[in-house]
Amino acid sequence: MSKLDDIVSLCKRRGFVFPGSEVYGGFAGTWDFGPLGVILKKKIMDAWWEFFVESRDDMYGVDAAILMNPLVWKASGHTATFADPLVECKECKSRFRADKIADGVNESVTSEEFWDLHVKCPVCGKENWGPIRKFNMMFATHVGAVLPDDDAELSEKSIAYLRPETAQGIFTNYKNVVDTFYPSLPFGLAQQGKAFRNEISPRDFILRDRECSQMEIEYFVKPDTWEENFEMLRSLQHEFLEKVIGLNVSSIHELEVAPEDRAHYSKRTIDFMFDYPNGTEELMGLAYRTDFDLSNIARESGKNMEYRDKITGEVFVPHVIEPSIGVERLFLAVLANAYTEDTVNDEKRVVLKLPENLAPYKFCVSPLLKNKPELVEKAREVYDLLRAKYGNVTWDDSGNIGKRYRKQDEIGTPKCVVIDFDTLEDESVTVRDRDTTEQVRVKITEL
Amino acid sequence: MSKLDDIVSLCKRRGFVFPGSEVYGGFAGTWDFGPLGVILKKKIMDAWWEFFVESRDDMYGVDAAILMNPLVWKASGHTATFADPLVECKECKSRFRADKIADGVNESVTSEEFWDLHVKCPVCGKENWGPIRKFNMMFATHVGAVLPDDDAELSEKSIAYLRPETAQGIFTNYKNVVDTFYPSLPFGLAQQGKAFRNEISPRDFILRDRECSQMEIEYFVKPDTWEENFEMLRSLQHEFLEKVIGLNVSSIHELEVAPEDRAHYSKRTIDFMFDYPNGTEELMGLAYRTDFDLSNIARESGKNMEYRDKITGEVFVPHVIEPSIGVERLFLAVLANAYTEDTVNDEKRVVLKLPENLAPYKFCVSPLLKNKPELVEKAREVYDLLRAKYGNVTWDDSGNIGKRYRKQDEIGTPKCVVIDFDTLEDESVTVRDRDTTEQVRVKITEL
Repeated sequence: MSKLDDIVSLCKRRGFVFPGSEVYGGFAGTWDFGPLGVILKKKIMDAWWEFFVESRDDMYGVDAAILMNPLVWKASGHTATFADPLVECKECKSRFRADKIADGVNESVTSEEFWDLHVKCPVCGKENWGPIRKFNMMFATHVGAVLPDDDAELSEKSIAYLRPETAQGIFTNYKNVVDTFYPSLPFGLAQQGKAFRNEISPRDFILRDRECSQMEIEYFVKPDTWEENFEMLRSLQHEFLEKVIGLNVSSIHELEVAPEDRAHYSKRTIDFMFDYPNGTEELMGLAYRTDFDLSNIARESGKNMEYRDKITGEVFVPHVIEPSIGVERLFLAVLANAYTEDTVNDEKRVVLKLPENLAPYKFCVSPLLKNKPELVEKAREVYDLLRAKYGNVTWDDSGNIGKRYRKQDEIGTPKCVVIDFDTLEDESVTVRDRDTTEQVRVKITEL
Repeated sequence: MSKLDDIVSLCKRRGFVFPGSEVYGGFAGTWDFGPLGVILKKKIMDAWWEFFVESRDDMYGVDAAILMNPLVWKASGHTATFADPLVECKECKSRFRADKIADGVNESVTSEEFWDLHVKCPVCGKENWGPIRKFNMMFATHVGAVLPDDDAELSEKSIAYLRPETAQGIFTNYKNVVDTFYPSLPFGLAQQGKAFRNEISPRDFILRDRECSQMEIEYFVKPDTWEENFEMLRSLQHEFLEKVIGLNVSSIHELEVAPEDRAHYSKRTIDFMFDYPNGTEELMGLAYRTDFDLSNIARESGKNMEYRDKITGEVFVPHVIEPSIGVERLFLAVLANAYTEDTVNDEKRVVLKLPENLAPYKFCVSPLLKNKPELVEKAREVYDLLRAKYGNVTWDDSGNIGKRYRKQDEIGTPKCVVIDFDTLEDESVTVRDRDTTEQVRVKITEL
């Protein structure tokens, strides 16, 4: 088993992440967060919100609808160009993303280039390909009272899309926020929410799924100050990933995206890459998007997107720097960073060395023996005390104490507190450390 | 202007809620939360989560994907029956929900019954109706590599729906959680998340929108204990709405749903109604759903949904009680409950009397005059101090002090702290109360 398989298995076994619709045999590209996954995901999202929005004076939150006016995606270019190259095997009818089954080609590979590579079909092994076609990854639906037997024109007019990114929900609210709050430049608009991409081949667990949560900021600046603001956000990203989320610095690599690989509107992009178990992959992006988005909106909507400087009176369309991160990508980075196998007393053990601020539970409280009412009662007392003080505390009286430790190690609980017969005498408990497995005796009042 | 119009206007003016995609002329039935709306919405959702999940030992969270295997909706009955009666005016082609434009009929009105009522078209005024047709409110999309020119069969097979409720995302994870956590009965699974309904006529601000957030619990019980658990959850709901959210008790009414109006699987339902500005409407529901959902899943999936009692060894399918609430409905109830117009010094004022735990900001700090650097500097000091202590503190140095008070009243900030020349002498500030408008002098250290 690869390390990724180990993590997928742990996630399912311990209730972090289950395959979506699993009881019906699943649903490709979707994943459900279980009880511990919900806690970890919320802690990650709240930590980001606290760090980038709540603790700052220059950030404002927005929360736009997933269903947006289709003009949004016309203006942004998604309707025309948000597409992957789809190729069909004429023998077995299987469909693939051409650039993923052929080496050394990118998303703009042509039919001729692809045919020349003589790729064999991964399903039937034959080589008989149809032409490459552009497959738009936006999920389309119909909004409004349109019936299946309506004519094509009416049907066409009702098409809307599930947003493929949260960013446009921010840009469309730029004018609302400016008109309501009159913020001084530079300022950022931040959003957390779902985005949807109809991946041809979802894969790599939650790394490439069809439904994900994004955390994005559009940071509006005076055009001639973009470089200093880019640097400011770049160092904030490092601080967030390394100090707040606790990722290993040596696992994060900045990739300066070359001009020919950048989106045409971007004048600078850094991809923050992370060493995932199955290879180094993008964890987040930092892109200078110029005035591309606001100008598109101005053109398509006819509305004025200019900003008037409060002091100089200067009028201009702000430029934008966008730090963007996928919650599931960060979630998996956190798990990969924490997942450790070691040997304790000649026994192999799996331990999630999660930082304390992210661990689903801070403490696990348990009575040494579950069939001794006096121990259970005392343990409940300690449990209630810690829960009142810290909130995220769990109770475990299943199996024997060794099994409980192994379980708490796997879900990343930093400390296990065990109540035994001595506790009844001297009000002290055993506190066992997740990472060192060391046990110390502590007074209840000192917990 | 009605009170609802006043609230809609305040929401837009102060950045709580904007019409969705407004810069493109809007998109019916969608709404975007602005900076203050995001804060209030998050506080409401976090308060619910804390009250019903985090602070309890019998609740587990889940967070399922919005896109689910279509069998989910076949099993639940949504594919066949989640439909409204649609009627078209043959003159002007306008379409309506039949039961909303005719008095005294319900969703199952037939064409003949409707025609007999001689309703005039609300748009063109004529009376020339087509037949009533069932319009399924689920948004459909295609998942996977399917192209517009694919044949009908392939296209049909790829149809999936945006979930119309979060509840089924809970039921489909029941077995995952039981197999992973072995919880004792009774226990609840809770979820917060988006749900989508293609309303024929979205209306009443955020009350009847096409995209909303739900907070639902499925509480699993031994069948013969449903009544006591129903009562327990009923009193928890009251505690939440009245103590945590601070809604006026006299605005909440329990409506015992009559057997003939209940869903066929429900043996008891209480709708918690709230006196909204535009009439009394459902705020939340509490329904005893028997084993309807788990039995549907068992039948459709072939999987065993039985639970084995840990002590008695008894085996049975648990029954379910569902408390369900829409975030937007609660959000509007909070605003309606807080919205007040009164007269202060002969001047009309609008004030949001939000409870302290929900107000976007606890304090507003400002210098009496913004062009006096010594006042601004001192005010910044106080601002930093309060922000470090309480977090949610805002700064305002716009306009004159009277205007600032009116603005903070409208966004519901309980206390305004003003730094003046005396502050520089004696380290005291003016604290002005939102509700009474009274001002007191307080030492900075006592804030």
